[in-house]
Parts: sequence; structure tokens; C-alpha cells
Amino acid sequence: MTHDKEPVRQRLIGEATRLFADRGFESTSVQEIVAAAGVTKGAMYHYFDSKDDLLHEIYGRVLRMQMERLTLLADGPGPVAERLHAAAADVVLTTVENLDDSKIFFRSMHLLAPDTRKSVRAERRRYHERFRDLVTEGQREGVFRADTPAEMVVDFFFGSVHHLGTWYSAEGALSGAEVGEHFADLLLTSLRPK
Amino acid sequence: MTHDKEPVRQRLIGEATRLFADRGFESTSVQEIVAAAGVTKGAMYHYFDSKDDLLHEIYGRVLRMQMERLTLLADGPGPVAERLHAAAADVVLTTVENLDDSKIFFRSMHLLAPDTRKSVRAERRRYHERFRDLVTEGQREGVFRADTPAEMVVDFFFGSVHHLGTWYSAEGALSGAEVGEHFADLLLTSLRPK
Repeated sequence: MTHDKEPVRQRLIGEATRLFADRGFESTSVQEIVAAAGVTKGAMYHYFDSKDDLLHEIYGRVLRMQMERLTLLADGPGPVAERLHAAAADVVLTTVENLDDSKIFFRSMHLLAPDTRKSVRAERRRYHERFRDLVTEGQREGVFRADTPAEMVVDFFFGSVHHLGTWYSAEGALSGAEVGEHFADLLLTSLRPK
Repeated sequence: MTHDKEPVRQRLIGEATRLFADRGFESTSVQEIVAAAGVTKGAMYHYFDSKDDLLHEIYGRVLRMQMERLTLLADGPGPVAERLHAAAADVVLTTVENLDDSKIFFRSMHLLAPDTRKSVRAERRRYHERFRDLVTEGQREGVFRADTPAEMVVDFFFGSVHHLGTWYSAEGALSGAEVGEHFADLLLTSLRPK
């Protein structure tokens, strides 16, 4: 059976995600991943340097997609309060739509090699900085309260987002879009000037 | 050298916390814990059934302390907005003061045996329910907005609290009490009626 190059890479990511979610990053071997994907170790090492690299990529592709969407929404038209609301609701939605990836990542981030961890942190920092700039923009305009540092607002909000994996269930009462609306609403209200 | 019974138990918890924080729950053996605490395996199994039991207890003692403080603040005198503010600021402070315990727990909770996980979840649910009742109380009084379910407010806020371990640093610019004030302020403002 022959495959295109892209499907092998995707299959490896898909099987690694499933295995990391089921039994934990630390308890999954490279051998199990390649067996599940039906490829050789050599094929895997063609695409990924290590298990670390796979975990990095699982979270990295979600983060890149979220960065693209944030950039579009943040740089779009409309008042800053509307753009921040849209960005906040959207990141909840995309996190819920990729909940396994986020769950795996936050559980296992501390197991990554220091260099990999550093590079993920830097990627996420860029995301948070773009988001923070929206808060700062609104504070400068006087639309948002300025007595809470924008950085603190970002840490507060993304704690809630990154923690979705511990409680959100697709079988629960609320859709990802509904939770996104509630979270964005709470965030925007929390920023109202006194 | 002889020890009181209590110190052995405390020493085991202390060394387990340190080892789990340094190298991860999954990579720490019972043998390493007892060696670090300077006791025999037999002594450890006198106090704890398993490594799971130790992890449960590390988080459990923080949770029990937080439950006691929440009960005091929630049942105390004063308007509900003040009591919720005090409870919110306090849980940030106690989380920061016990940051290793919380960090270890959220990283490793998925590795606990199902029964242990279930019992921790039940303990935490009781905590969240007491906190949620404060939100409901304010909603009934018309002091807090009622268009966001109280349950959602709790999930939103405790995401931020449980995530402190991933970014808060004691060497950073803000003390736990200062972060607590900011978080409590954001929460209370987010609940203002429209």
C-alpha cells in the first residue's frame, strides 16, 4: 500500500494524539505510535525528531491556527470591545474543538526537553502579546478599566481557557460556542471602567 | 534516631511533594520517596496505601484548608459581594502559597486510579458548590448579573486559579495577595449587572 507523504505525517500526529490522550505522554512509546500509524520508525523519524517533537507539533498546529484567527479578528474593523469579544469567544471555541490537544499539552508540557518547552513558551507568548495589545488599546481609549494591568487580564482569561480540558465535555449542556459567548461576556464585563 | 509518628508522615508528604515537583509523579518511585524521607517502605505503607494515596493527600490537605477558610468567609457577616471578594482573593493567596501542590496535582490528576480521582473530584465539587452558592446568593439579591449561569462563573474563575501554577512565580513582580486582589476585582466586576 502506498501513501502520499502528507497522510503519513498526519496519521502519526493523529495516532500520537489519541495515544497521549488515552494513556499519557509519558507512558506512550515511539514504538506504539509507529505501530498504531502503521509506519516504520524510520518513517516517523523522517518527519519528527522525537516524541517531544510530536507533542510540540500537536500543540503547535493548534496554536498557529489560533494565532492566524486572532490576527484576523484583532486587525479587523470595528470597535476594540467588539474585536476583543470576538477574539475571546473564538479562542474558547477553537480550544474546545481541539480539546485533546490542549489537554495533552498542559498535562505534559513539564515533560518536554527544556529547549522545546522554551520554544513553545515563546510561541504562546506571541499569541498572548497580540491579545494583550487589544486590552491595552481599549485601556488607552478609556473603554476598558486601566487599574488592572493588561498582562494580568491575559493571565486571568487564559487560565480559564487553558483549563477547559479539565471540565468541558462535548456531552455537556453547553456547546463550545456557548461557553465562548459566556467567557467573552465575563471578560468584557470585567474590563468595564468603574 | 527516633521520630514521633506525625513527623514521619509529614516528612513523607514533604519529600514526595518535592520529588513529584522536580521529576514528575510518573517518574518518581516509592523507593525514592522512602529513601529521601529516610524511612522504610513498611513505614510508608503504614501511613499511605500507595503513591496515588500520597498524591491525593498532597492536594487533599490544601483543599481541606481552603474549604475551612471558604466556609468561614462565606458564612461570615457582611454583604455577599464583600464575602465573595474575600473568598476569591483568599483562594488565590492559598493556592500561590501552596503552588507546588497545586501544580503537581493538575499535571498528574489523570494518572490517579479512577476511584481516587473520583473522590478528589467529589471533594473539589463540594468546594466549588459552596463558592457557587455565594454567586447564586448575589444573583438572587440582584447584586450580580443573572444572565450567566453561576456554574459557568465558577468554572471561569477556577480555571484562572488552577492555572496559576503554570505562570505565577514567587520571584515575579506581584505577591500572591496582589494577584488575589486583581483576580477578585476582575471576578466581582465581571458579575456587575448590565
